[in-house]
Amino acid sequence: MTRWKLTIEYNGGDYVGWQRQNNGPSIQQSIEEAIHGFSGQEVTLHVAGRTDAGVHARGQVAHADFDDFTKPMDGFEVAKAINAYLRPQPISVLKADIVDEEFHARYAAKNKLYTYRIINRPSLLGLDRGQAFHVKRPLDVAAMADAGTALLGHHDFTTFRDSNCQAKSPMRTLDRLEFETRDYDNCGGREILMHVEAQSFLHHQVRNIIGTLLLVGEGKWTKADIADALAAKDRTRGGPTAPAEGLYLVRIDYA
Amino acid sequence: MTRWKLTIEYNGGDYVGWQRQNNGPSIQQSIEEAIHGFSGQEVTLHVAGRTDAGVHARGQVAHADFDDFTKPMDGFEVAKAINAYLRPQPISVLKADIVDEEFHARYAAKNKLYTYRIINRPSLLGLDRGQAFHVKRPLDVAAMADAGTALLGHHDFTTFRDSNCQAKSPMRTLDRLEFETRDYDNCGGREILMHVEAQSFLHHQVRNIIGTLLLVGEGKWTKADIADALAAKDRTRGGPTAPAEGLYLVRIDYA
Repeated sequence: MTRWKLTIEYNGGDYVGWQRQNNGPSIQQSIEEAIHGFSGQEVTLHVAGRTDAGVHARGQVAHADFDDFTKPMDGFEVAKAINAYLRPQPISVLKADIVDEEFHARYAAKNKLYTYRIINRPSLLGLDRGQAFHVKRPLDVAAMADAGTALLGHHDFTTFRDSNCQAKSPMRTLDRLEFETRDYDNCGGREILMHVEAQSFLHHQVRNIIGTLLLVGEGKWTKADIADALAAKDRTRGGPTAPAEGLYLVRIDYA
Repeated sequence: MTRWKLTIEYNGGDYVGWQRQNNGPSIQQSIEEAIHGFSGQEVTLHVAGRTDAGVHARGQVAHADFDDFTKPMDGFEVAKAINAYLRPQPISVLKADIVDEEFHARYAAKNKLYTYRIINRPSLLGLDRGQAFHVKRPLDVAAMADAGTALLGHHDFTTFRDSNCQAKSPMRTLDRLEFETRDYDNCGGREILMHVEAQSFLHHQVRNIIGTLLLVGEGKWTKADIADALAAKDRTRGGPTAPAEGLYLVRIDYA
């Protein structure tokens, strides 16, 4: 038996999310079926971060235990074999590595990077439809970045946690919250990226944070309102949950 | 009567190209129908660069003559009205400007920028499927960039011109050919962009140039081979035509 770590990219737009569910195709099911296709093995993938329906990944990580292959295969061959069976789905195994049997994609994760992507311009999205959140009105990104610093550090994030969140504790440590802007088109449109890092996140935490910071970007809230909302420890005091289509799980770091 | 200039973004993946054809939906038809939807007018769009099936645009330009609207509309309102009728197609009018009746999207163009986008990594594309050309084997981008300089300037580009090209002359002046690379994923994959500028291009010129420079990137051809192919003025001496899905019409400059 060998434990493999898979690093995975996907467009979550047409899936019910990472986890197997009865109401539609999941990323997990697609990859497990592709593994069965090339190896005949029925493995169970253990994932680092269960992404919701519509959320994308540039560097999701999952592990699974495989029986030894009839013919030895290296990581490149394993990734290629899975991808051949995933075709033409928008899911790709970027890398497959043998890890020791202590490794766990979720419990061994030291740090996760999520990026939330906004296209800020009046006109509808053409090229990036479904791969970014479209915000029409001009946003004050400097104000959003400044207000976001109120969320850095160790806090009770109940205000930014989905009411169905299963985590035992609402305490989390937010290590990074930074904004980046880039010109997006030739007509003044901008791409706005929010990068957030923590060892782990609560359900909908990133989407609730950006949904609330957007109120600052629109001039409706101040930095003090963000700090007050956090201190209230009450989901009803936070802003709306931003759409899944803007969220990317970018990278997971291990020791 | 008022002449309007439209700046347009689109994902060309599901279209037969810019121009109306009998074998499927075109970008031109979609926009002309959207204009008819909001205004009742049957206008004919005159485009700067007729893109082929599958080619994308970040800044295509077209013009058309409109009868005066019953209620005056500014550029923002015109773009918004067209986009409302384009929905949910991956086409968006970024900007609508009134221009004088001398303006012609194609004949008044002083410069065009095309970018060809390659994702260079072993694993299949997930997020950018259909929006970049996937090249598995590592490319020598420095060699491609150096070889590309042999094509700069005023030349007979018959070697890089589609055999069905309708242009009267094969002479063109290539003003810029530059490569840019960026990290693309967390597993060593790279995004390689080729930017080319000229006042006008021959049919398939950009795709034939990059298709040939890829032979240099793979170590099969040298810079001297590129110069020889150009000097031969013979399409059969050039490399293959790279796929449409990597090509973007980025910007068109007017006086």
